[in-house]
Amino acid sequence: MNKKSPVAVFDSGIGGLTVAKRLNQILPGEKIIYFGDTARVPYGTKSRDTIKQYALQIAGFLIRFKPKLIVIACHSVSSLGKAFLEKKFPDYTFIDVIGPSVEEATEKTKNKKIGIIGTPATISSGMYPEMIERIDSGIKVYQKPCPLLVPLVEEGWFDNDVTRSIVKYYIQGVLDKQIDTLILGCTHYPLLKKAIRKITGLAVHLVDASDATSVKVKDFLVVNGLLNTKKAKTPVIYFSDVSEYRNQVMHRFWNKMDFLIKKIDTGEL
Amino acid sequence: MNKKSPVAVFDSGIGGLTVAKRLNQILPGEKIIYFGDTARVPYGTKSRDTIKQYALQIAGFLIRFKPKLIVIACHSVSSLGKAFLEKKFPDYTFIDVIGPSVEEATEKTKNKKIGIIGTPATISSGMYPEMIERIDSGIKVYQKPCPLLVPLVEEGWFDNDVTRSIVKYYIQGVLDKQIDTLILGCTHYPLLKKAIRKITGLAVHLVDASDATSVKVKDFLVVNGLLNTKKAKTPVIYFSDVSEYRNQVMHRFWNKMDFLIKKIDTGEL
Repeated sequence: MNKKSPVAVFDSGIGGLTVAKRLNQILPGEKIIYFGDTARVPYGTKSRDTIKQYALQIAGFLIRFKPKLIVIACHSVSSLGKAFLEKKFPDYTFIDVIGPSVEEATEKTKNKKIGIIGTPATISSGMYPEMIERIDSGIKVYQKPCPLLVPLVEEGWFDNDVTRSIVKYYIQGVLDKQIDTLILGCTHYPLLKKAIRKITGLAVHLVDASDATSVKVKDFLVVNGLLNTKKAKTPVIYFSDVSEYRNQVMHRFWNKMDFLIKKIDTGEL
Repeated sequence: MNKKSPVAVFDSGIGGLTVAKRLNQILPGEKIIYFGDTARVPYGTKSRDTIKQYALQIAGFLIRFKPKLIVIACHSVSSLGKAFLEKKFPDYTFIDVIGPSVEEATEKTKNKKIGIIGTPATISSGMYPEMIERIDSGIKVYQKPCPLLVPLVEEGWFDNDVTRSIVKYYIQGVLDKQIDTLILGCTHYPLLKKAIRKITGLAVHLVDASDATSVKVKDFLVVNGLLNTKKAKTPVIYFSDVSEYRNQVMHRFWNKMDFLIKKIDTGEL
């Protein structure tokens, strides 16, 4: 691999596009290859074994492009740790979305009370509290699974009355614990930031994984002399299933028209 | 096959359990085999080709049990028609969830105005209007896709303020057309009946596919001398993926504890 090699990003579906979009903004010279497993989304409700098996298939597909690094822009996969991927593909670097968020949150919190919201699978994995404890065991962590937020985002209801009611229902409990930092533990949630901000108020620092992860990717490229500063490349987005409805939803995540969408069956991964 | 053969039911996930549960209530002597494709749910956002391919795999699995009939308790599959399944498995009878609902709705409507709510895939398939027109081209049909209702049911929010707001948002438009009959075009929706009833009022007849389909199954068994009136059998539920969260959600659909849950990988279908 070299400077011209692409940066690969994958997710169970379209949520990881918030990360790909942010990467494209702060690293406009990088060619982005995205894979969204839309035929098998969501991973959030699937078992650990199934999620691992799918992630290995996808990484196997992405290394055909010899990427500089592979971003695991999926919380369900990230919550299982990167070790099983690094073991299978030792020549490649993986950056997940949980590590960078945890680093930012532990640096930002002053009162050492951090809240985390995410899908049921991410929350029940216990990965966030485990990683936070490894950095600072004095930090108290309050978690809340929020199964309705992903469908709300996909419906495009980013900030209406119903969305605010649901967000309030989910996060009031963690706010009552006096947290000063809230990790948005799902790649869909950056799109709800405005609604979430209205409920949290300005005093709570929101950790957005798309920001935190993109900064981490940039650092890696700079340190390893792999940053590409040449002119922009057209991102290529692979989906394991394509439908008109999915395409509509997708444009709520990345309202840029100049990318290529390609289909690849899961059987060909 | 004979009287002792099972009745097979399948769905993309757990929604079809509303049909299996109703079948179990009105046909307590029948052994029910259910398959829910929880590893690949939802089908609602997938393409026609992918849905067909999955349905053929599942039917191939179910005929190993030599069932008296196979109930397609999935609107996304039913909306593609039964012909592709009947062609591939000509020795088996398939009963879908759309046909029985359409028959009931066209019989019940007096002012010839029918509303239909369902997932985006079911609605965009146009299957309901097409079948209604075939029976009576004088009937006016008003459809509305409701992507948030399935996640609401799975969260167990059957009838709270948020649910009623969302239901009202989705169905007010069709109510304004003065419909007298509303088809609940998704197997999850019977669980929202109370909330929906509060918005429609009593004058609108609600068509519940789990009722309509179960009656159709009973008729078929009686007419063909296949009805089993012996003592109850334990239902067996196969899932392509099993997780703790899914099991919790599942018990919102069928709060009966005496069934067997088994896992079968999609690769073994």
